[in-house]
Amino acid sequence: MPAITEQVQAQLTIQPIPGGVTAAKGFTAAGDCVGIKKSGKKDLALIFSAKPATVAACLTTNVVKAAPILWCQQVISRQKPIHAIVVNSGNANACTGEQGWQDTQQMAETTALQLGCKPDEVLVASTGVIGVPLPIDTILTGISQVAGQLKDSQETGYVAAQAIMTTDTFSKEAAVTMALGGKVVTVGGAAKGSGMIHPNMATMLAFITTDAAISPALLAKALKESTEESYNMISVDGDTSTNDMVAVLANGAAGNPLIDTENEDYELFKQALDQVNRKLAQLIARDGEGASKFLSAHVSNAGTKQTAQKLAKSIISSSLVKSAFYGEDANWGRILAAMGYAGAPFDPAKVDLKLSSAAGSIDLLNAGQPVPFDEGIAKTVLQEKDIEILVDLHAGEASATAWGCDLTHGYVDINASYRT
Amino acid sequence: MPAITEQVQAQLTIQPIPGGVTAAKGFTAAGDCVGIKKSGKKDLALIFSAKPATVAACLTTNVVKAAPILWCQQVISRQKPIHAIVVNSGNANACTGEQGWQDTQQMAETTALQLGCKPDEVLVASTGVIGVPLPIDTILTGISQVAGQLKDSQETGYVAAQAIMTTDTFSKEAAVTMALGGKVVTVGGAAKGSGMIHPNMATMLAFITTDAAISPALLAKALKESTEESYNMISVDGDTSTNDMVAVLANGAAGNPLIDTENEDYELFKQALDQVNRKLAQLIARDGEGASKFLSAHVSNAGTKQTAQKLAKSIISSSLVKSAFYGEDANWGRILAAMGYAGAPFDPAKVDLKLSSAAGSIDLLNAGQPVPFDEGIAKTVLQEKDIEILVDLHAGEASATAWGCDLTHGYVDINASYRT
Repeated sequence: MPAITEQVQAQLTIQPIPGGVTAAKGFTAAGDCVGIKKSGKKDLALIFSAKPATVAACLTTNVVKAAPILWCQQVISRQKPIHAIVVNSGNANACTGEQGWQDTQQMAETTALQLGCKPDEVLVASTGVIGVPLPIDTILTGISQVAGQLKDSQETGYVAAQAIMTTDTFSKEAAVTMALGGKVVTVGGAAKGSGMIHPNMATMLAFITTDAAISPALLAKALKESTEESYNMISVDGDTSTNDMVAVLANGAAGNPLIDTENEDYELFKQALDQVNRKLAQLIARDGEGASKFLSAHVSNAGTKQTAQKLAKSIISSSLVKSAFYGEDANWGRILAAMGYAGAPFDPAKVDLKLSSAAGSIDLLNAGQPVPFDEGIAKTVLQEKDIEILVDLHAGEASATAWGCDLTHGYVDINASYRT
Repeated sequence: MPAITEQVQAQLTIQPIPGGVTAAKGFTAAGDCVGIKKSGKKDLALIFSAKPATVAACLTTNVVKAAPILWCQQVISRQKPIHAIVVNSGNANACTGEQGWQDTQQMAETTALQLGCKPDEVLVASTGVIGVPLPIDTILTGISQVAGQLKDSQETGYVAAQAIMTTDTFSKEAAVTMALGGKVVTVGGAAKGSGMIHPNMATMLAFITTDAAISPALLAKALKESTEESYNMISVDGDTSTNDMVAVLANGAAGNPLIDTENEDYELFKQALDQVNRKLAQLIARDGEGASKFLSAHVSNAGTKQTAQKLAKSIISSSLVKSAFYGEDANWGRILAAMGYAGAPFDPAKVDLKLSSAAGSIDLLNAGQPVPFDEGIAKTVLQEKDIEILVDLHAGEASATAWGCDLTHGYVDINASYRT
């Protein structure tokens, strides 16, 4: 945990504001239904910066990478500014062979043509069913249609956030603002994700825009570190997607002094980025497929940060823990078991464990010894929608938090019939 | 895969026979309801060899180890023959602190007293809810009660297999016989397990008895290797238990020449042990909590055995793959995604994938390219209860098979209310 004073400092200088990818100056967005989804829901989004934007991204570590991931790898490896992101939902363009690669290229080419930039200045992202060829003609026509609707309004940012959704039940946006060198700098973003969520180094789709002026190296460093404590700390079902991607675009439109050393401005920018990423990651966990409860596992006083992270993530990834919370059952032995197989060392005899919610809290384990508890009070605590699992290892000073959701009939329903 | 001739050879010389832990000469067993389970089902079992038996065991790798696991570690570390195993179901005696340790010791002492051996010649195993003190008086009285029922019959072996069950819906036994040095040697066993199943080096409860004469070192080697290709290749829910244990007792009652080098007799014994362990592991996967289908993932022509094992296990561990099979949906993209995050290298562009069952088979992927398939035929194939997922990597000669089950409403039901 950062010291209390640091937290207060961040709260004083970083202000949450409404909006998402269009919150930062110089970014426009749009989204619409172009006919990819049978449901008739929105399925294509564009994000655009007329000013060249420095880009950093974390892409999936899955060996099976979708065509758009391979395309983005190529764009990122050029180490040059870019202008746009085109995203379709309803089809992942993964495991689609050579045709899939050509389709992705065409998406970048058409977007570039519409927006007056080059194809390799366009990131492409796709999400949806795996192994089905894209309806490419529909998509290319759709890109022209959506390009005509680009605006810098909060409304178009919201529509773009809706257009990247698959099984999500709500769209996910976050934005904050701060002062850097006397200029107002904004960081905003949108994300999607509900199932096949168990990011590893990379993550589901998240697009962050900022008008900060920042060097490519520091933007990449900030994103990587931020991803590790946000998207990489959530799990819905243990499945790492073929299409995971977080990208951040920084166009410098705020006019702040260029951040090119790890100075105070960098630290503040990093905190703002963390805040946006953590918020978006939490929203994804909260909207986990079929979820009825949002779980936060906080492991404190660990020997190392890595141990705290492994234990926290193992708790919120366990099917047994998740099912128990669905049943509002204080079956805390499963939490200990999940910590035990996390692959990190700790002394079970020192562990304190409690569960907490808006309705109160219950102590379950004190220095490794079970604490008798009142089942009635436990039920009251667990009937809430947001539950905190608090673990104290009494072994050091490191801590970490991971976020997840319960495992419900709804998850099984959604995934027994997703494709058909 | 062993060469065909090897397989035929094994089939000719290793014969499956009825029975379980009492199939081998010189072993008696018993089980009964002693009052641990509220349901009134059987909950205590004993396995006994009057002749001293060489012992080998694989115990859970979970950092949180139940008291009986710590006890067994101590018994095994003595490297001396033992006589008995006492097992209770309905309570795992895990996370129960100093009291749990004393209770385990008392179980060994009472068993030893009843059977005329020493406490450190008794393995203790417990399975059930975590974090609740054992009803120790009930158990100690129960041990005396069950000890009076020990017999070498097939019936008492079956009753013991029933008495170790928790959420299992059927008891799990296997036995084979073979000739070694002109003597009939038998290997038999019983296992339990249905949830919290994702063994790692060790496994759920499985007890193997054999009348073979074999050195401690070779018995331990054979068990370790056999465990890696049986219990460690199944998963129900990704959760590794605090109480996992496989133990094999070899009392030499068959009178075969002592196996103390890796000769032909060792190879045959190893094959027999493999056959029993594989069968018991498959039964556990088939009886996975809430399961409606039994899944076998076979990965062939991998570069290394380890790659084949990691990919096969990742497939049958994926919540998304498991849900899709529950829905009888040929959503093969999830299989590729699960292979992709398994942590083993392969070339997606070379992969062949097909699904097969008693009703036929469907090709889904050919050299990485999707094969158009008839949804009606796919549905027919997937409506069967036993489904094979066949992956060919075209990268080498190694192969592996993993076993699992689908993820159903039943799993959620069982685990949302297990404790209460």
